[in-house]
Amino acid sequence: MGVNSNRVDHFDSHHPTIIRISNSDPPPPPPMEIHRVSLPPHRSTLRKLGHRLADVFFPDDPLHRFKNQTWFMKLLLALQYFFPIFQWAPHYGLKLLRSDAVSGLTIASLAIPQVSVLCSEIQSMCALFLETEYALFLKKGISYAKLANLPPIIGLYSSFVPPLVYSLLGSSRHLGVGPVSIASLVMGSMLSENVSFTSQPILYLKLAFTATFFAGLFQASLGILRLGFVIDFLSKATLVGFMAGAAIIVSLQQLKGLLGITHFTAKMQIIPWSWQTILLGFAFLAFLLATRHISLKKPKLFWVSAAAPLTSVIVSTILVFLLRDKAHGIAIIGNLPKGLNPPSTNMLYFNGPYLALAIKTGIVTGILSLTEGIAVGRTFAALKNYQVDGNKEMMAIGLMNIAGCCSSCYVTTGSFSRSAVNFNAGAQTAVSNIIMASAVLVTLLFLMPLFYYTPNVVLAAIIITAVIGLIDYQAAYKLWKVDKLDFLACLCSFFGVLFISVPLGLGIAVAISVFKILLHVSRPNTVVLGNLPGTQIFHNLNQYREALRVPSFLILAVESPIYFANSTYLQERILRWVREEEERIKANKESTLKCIILDMTAVTAIDTSGIDTLCELRKTLEKRSFQLVLTNPVGNVMEKLHQSKILDSFGMKGLYLTVGEAVADISMSWKA
Amino acid sequence: MGVNSNRVDHFDSHHPTIIRISNSDPPPPPPMEIHRVSLPPHRSTLRKLGHRLADVFFPDDPLHRFKNQTWFMKLLLALQYFFPIFQWAPHYGLKLLRSDAVSGLTIASLAIPQVSVLCSEIQSMCALFLETEYALFLKKGISYAKLANLPPIIGLYSSFVPPLVYSLLGSSRHLGVGPVSIASLVMGSMLSENVSFTSQPILYLKLAFTATFFAGLFQASLGILRLGFVIDFLSKATLVGFMAGAAIIVSLQQLKGLLGITHFTAKMQIIPWSWQTILLGFAFLAFLLATRHISLKKPKLFWVSAAAPLTSVIVSTILVFLLRDKAHGIAIIGNLPKGLNPPSTNMLYFNGPYLALAIKTGIVTGILSLTEGIAVGRTFAALKNYQVDGNKEMMAIGLMNIAGCCSSCYVTTGSFSRSAVNFNAGAQTAVSNIIMASAVLVTLLFLMPLFYYTPNVVLAAIIITAVIGLIDYQAAYKLWKVDKLDFLACLCSFFGVLFISVPLGLGIAVAISVFKILLHVSRPNTVVLGNLPGTQIFHNLNQYREALRVPSFLILAVESPIYFANSTYLQERILRWVREEEERIKANKESTLKCIILDMTAVTAIDTSGIDTLCELRKTLEKRSFQLVLTNPVGNVMEKLHQSKILDSFGMKGLYLTVGEAVADISMSWKA
Repeated sequence: MGVNSNRVDHFDSHHPTIIRISNSDPPPPPPMEIHRVSLPPHRSTLRKLGHRLADVFFPDDPLHRFKNQTWFMKLLLALQYFFPIFQWAPHYGLKLLRSDAVSGLTIASLAIPQVSVLCSEIQSMCALFLETEYALFLKKGISYAKLANLPPIIGLYSSFVPPLVYSLLGSSRHLGVGPVSIASLVMGSMLSENVSFTSQPILYLKLAFTATFFAGLFQASLGILRLGFVIDFLSKATLVGFMAGAAIIVSLQQLKGLLGITHFTAKMQIIPWSWQTILLGFAFLAFLLATRHISLKKPKLFWVSAAAPLTSVIVSTILVFLLRDKAHGIAIIGNLPKGLNPPSTNMLYFNGPYLALAIKTGIVTGILSLTEGIAVGRTFAALKNYQVDGNKEMMAIGLMNIAGCCSSCYVTTGSFSRSAVNFNAGAQTAVSNIIMASAVLVTLLFLMPLFYYTPNVVLAAIIITAVIGLIDYQAAYKLWKVDKLDFLACLCSFFGVLFISVPLGLGIAVAISVFKILLHVSRPNTVVLGNLPGTQIFHNLNQYREALRVPSFLILAVESPIYFANSTYLQERILRWVREEEERIKANKESTLKCIILDMTAVTAIDTSGIDTLCELRKTLEKRSFQLVLTNPVGNVMEKLHQSKILDSFGMKGLYLTVGEAVADISMSWKA
Repeated sequence: MGVNSNRVDHFDSHHPTIIRISNSDPPPPPPMEIHRVSLPPHRSTLRKLGHRLADVFFPDDPLHRFKNQTWFMKLLLALQYFFPIFQWAPHYGLKLLRSDAVSGLTIASLAIPQVSVLCSEIQSMCALFLETEYALFLKKGISYAKLANLPPIIGLYSSFVPPLVYSLLGSSRHLGVGPVSIASLVMGSMLSENVSFTSQPILYLKLAFTATFFAGLFQASLGILRLGFVIDFLSKATLVGFMAGAAIIVSLQQLKGLLGITHFTAKMQIIPWSWQTILLGFAFLAFLLATRHISLKKPKLFWVSAAAPLTSVIVSTILVFLLRDKAHGIAIIGNLPKGLNPPSTNMLYFNGPYLALAIKTGIVTGILSLTEGIAVGRTFAALKNYQVDGNKEMMAIGLMNIAGCCSSCYVTTGSFSRSAVNFNAGAQTAVSNIIMASAVLVTLLFLMPLFYYTPNVVLAAIIITAVIGLIDYQAAYKLWKVDKLDFLACLCSFFGVLFISVPLGLGIAVAISVFKILLHVSRPNTVVLGNLPGTQIFHNLNQYREALRVPSFLILAVESPIYFANSTYLQERILRWVREEEERIKANKESTLKCIILDMTAVTAIDTSGIDTLCELRKTLEKRSFQLVLTNPVGNVMEKLHQSKILDSFGMKGLYLTVGEAVADISMSWKA
């Protein structure tokens, strides 16, 4: 990268001031050593563009490992690059398999009750947003012959194919793949705003699979185009608010299930409920919350809350089976179809009036699930100190969704809860995903009838327990303490999601985050610097009480690039600093102001408006007989100043390497 | 502002290194003087918010002049603040009046032919955008009895009331107020996209006045709310492209007038034309271009091109009057009504289906005209070295438009061409605007019949000459040379305006400008620093060939705030620098890397994601047994690091004031 590779052989670890008194070997610098400000080495526009693009799209330099390798090794490395399974498969042994088997079975035990949980989450969102009778429908789903066996089972299908694909392509070793609530929630709300599931069930499902296809396509393209950075704009603050808002919506909705109400009507008419449902629901809710509490208190007992959902499902199913003649009021899942994922390529919908809706839904759910997946992957990678590659993860998640939409799955990604269980259960490689998929396979083929008597109310309890954990008020408090604007973004995404709608709430939060950046750019800090006595160090007077002003000088540091968006402001602000300094000098009867030094260390970029501003500022100050001096412009700023010929107007004495040198040299010239 | 007002009484103008050898008065610092990084003084959240808001909304500190004044003076100052006329009126004399009278009459001579020019500009835009018969209509306008005497005369009305209002409130001394082509063009296109002037002329005019009202209201509110900075987002690059695009559209349209074609039909059917019109048109075009060329070559002869429009109007009118029986093919302005601006309060439209359109048009034209007005005001203020206050200008321009919409005027602002003529003619104060208004008044009352025989074709020639000057290809070339992304914004606004539409073209250009900021923030520069031999200065190795790497250290400077938008990238990029440094060390067999120093000087802000990233980075590097050290965090970054308790994990040896001290101290500790 054109980096200077000179090196100093011995660096004086003492303060140079001292060294030169005791050691006369290196000749002392001449009395007024002034360092020239250098231009970076000249590069053509094309080469600069190339470097810039490489830095934007390939920050990790994926080709570096191919250097100095034979052709065979290059092929192997490429294979390993695209299919990380080839990296660890050669070293895979029985010991690793044992760990992976335990963790795989554990997450499968979590996945099987989640089937209906996640489906009923979509269903609950629909009901909440549009008060359709989707909720009712899903429970009776099976009786709609045309739909064959799709809706309630999609969640389980989605725990089978995508994990297999991910285990081949993914770079995370601990990611538990499956459907997640955020994506389910958004897909449910966006689709049912436009298509009623009740009246057009097949269209609805077609759109869901098509949206999954576009989500996968979008995710994979982001990876291929190496545009992973768009995801960074969903900040952590936004996600904290979003999860809390979504958790409250889902909990409120599930309360209905817990109370045995099948649907609200438009007039909130209370329909008859059964006390058995309520009793069963709250009993299991209490049980689940208690196990959660235990695991939170004693992290070693993590398996207590991990095993609780499956236990609840089993116990409640047995209970309802035993009481099947007495408790008719309790709604049950009913007939679940056996058999593997049916192919769904024929359900993809590539023309017609709702195509735009499917694409929009796909992109939004794609972004959301990708964000969660990568964030989860990164979290566990950091715990075990390995790297996950953002762009590679995108391709893995995208391809598993494209594979999924052809086999009756909806949007999947790395699920936080599933990955946490996977990690805690000791998973070592992506084989745990293969084990989970196998367990789901067995369930799909043979064990489905066991879920006939599972009561819906226990699923409501499981959901409530799960989503309550998503309300991270401690994180919100930390945001408030550290960064008020981050907290505002968090609040907006919380209330936006709660009271307006999911995409709009997220949109507002992203807008606030971007606004924060723009505000920082359009109203940058300017600080007055002073000298730390006895040193050549110049620092913020406000931060360093010991720093002293230098008479006749006003030393300002601009803490931002100088852009069109802030050039007017900066000019006004600098002139105001000058005015205030003059007033202060007048009041304290100090020596008059003669020179304004602009420390450009933190001015990391400049554009044409910024250059014009500097020119204008110099003219204005010169007419009031002040000298304007720039110090330490960074490489690309120096380049632009040079290209725009502005340096000629500043002259030799208008540019210094450090503030100290500028002060010393200009004071000298005044004395002379 | 809580700024430290300590001062040093004598600053050593020599390099301290040298001073201490020759002069033993100040005690030498102890061998390992390490400066502590300070926290800025504690301020409450509310006070911080107050300071921040004051800096965002009142960068010019408008209250500073009221300090230490008597009540009477305070009142006078307030009056002067709101009505700048009170600042200069007391000192106004005969000498200033003479200058202002000359310049006022000169811009009036420009304004009177502009009447129809500007009206026909709106007219031409309409015809271009929707091929209505507005153009034809405007010429016959007077025959529509209901419309009374509005359309062709609005331009002249707009040169009467608004300049008077501006001369009371405005802070610029050289701004020539009147209708401008950009605002006329956008208003014409936006309104006629929805309302046909031909079929609903009264509604159209009502909407134009209502849009003017909302433009004024919007501009004045921006001033009152001190939100002037939104205008900064229309960068100079965008405006260069926009003006060139608009100039080409207008020129192409006026070519029709020059060829004597009254309107294109949908099928571009050629209608019969008159050779007299073409001859007259091209003759005057040649004359105007020649005078423009003369004035450009010899700036002293500026009056040649300034007087040329009026001369052309007079000569052509006389010519057509003399030939009135022979040349029937030449279209003339016809009957223009005498009399002052009629009141138009009854024409304002505050309910009904088109209100949203009027508001939208008002806001867009308000933003555009305000941008031009303030930019023009600033340009001439810079030439004469005085300040114009952006917020005050907004209020002046806003109030003059509100006054204007009640007196049959449409959107006005500071016009570039008129201000340039005003300035060149020697205007000294806003009185020149009053003189111009008076001249227009006389024309309105007595001289209107003189314009009966003015041929339309000469107006087309005047427009073409005027707008050709707006194509600033030299500015575009400079943009290309200095900043490629600015040039891209310029190109997009040019082609967007030319081929899509005015608001969309501008929107794309603003989006690119904002994208440029976001790209800079999400992909910031990181540079490797080296030591300039014999100094404590550390600089970019790439920019300074003489800088040397320090063995066992990797010194990185991050040139951007650390935000949610770049925290992932920065972490990856820093780890890549570490990897590359290790490879380089391996290849050159140097001493192993032990410590990574992160110079935070240019990290002007940090948010919660950034703090998490620093934590994670430290953990990752520590596991690979590297030490991570931060140097010189600025005030607010230091505050946030402190609040988030991250400093505890870095420990005492993890934070230094300068890179030099960090290197010296850490090298020492290794030796110990």
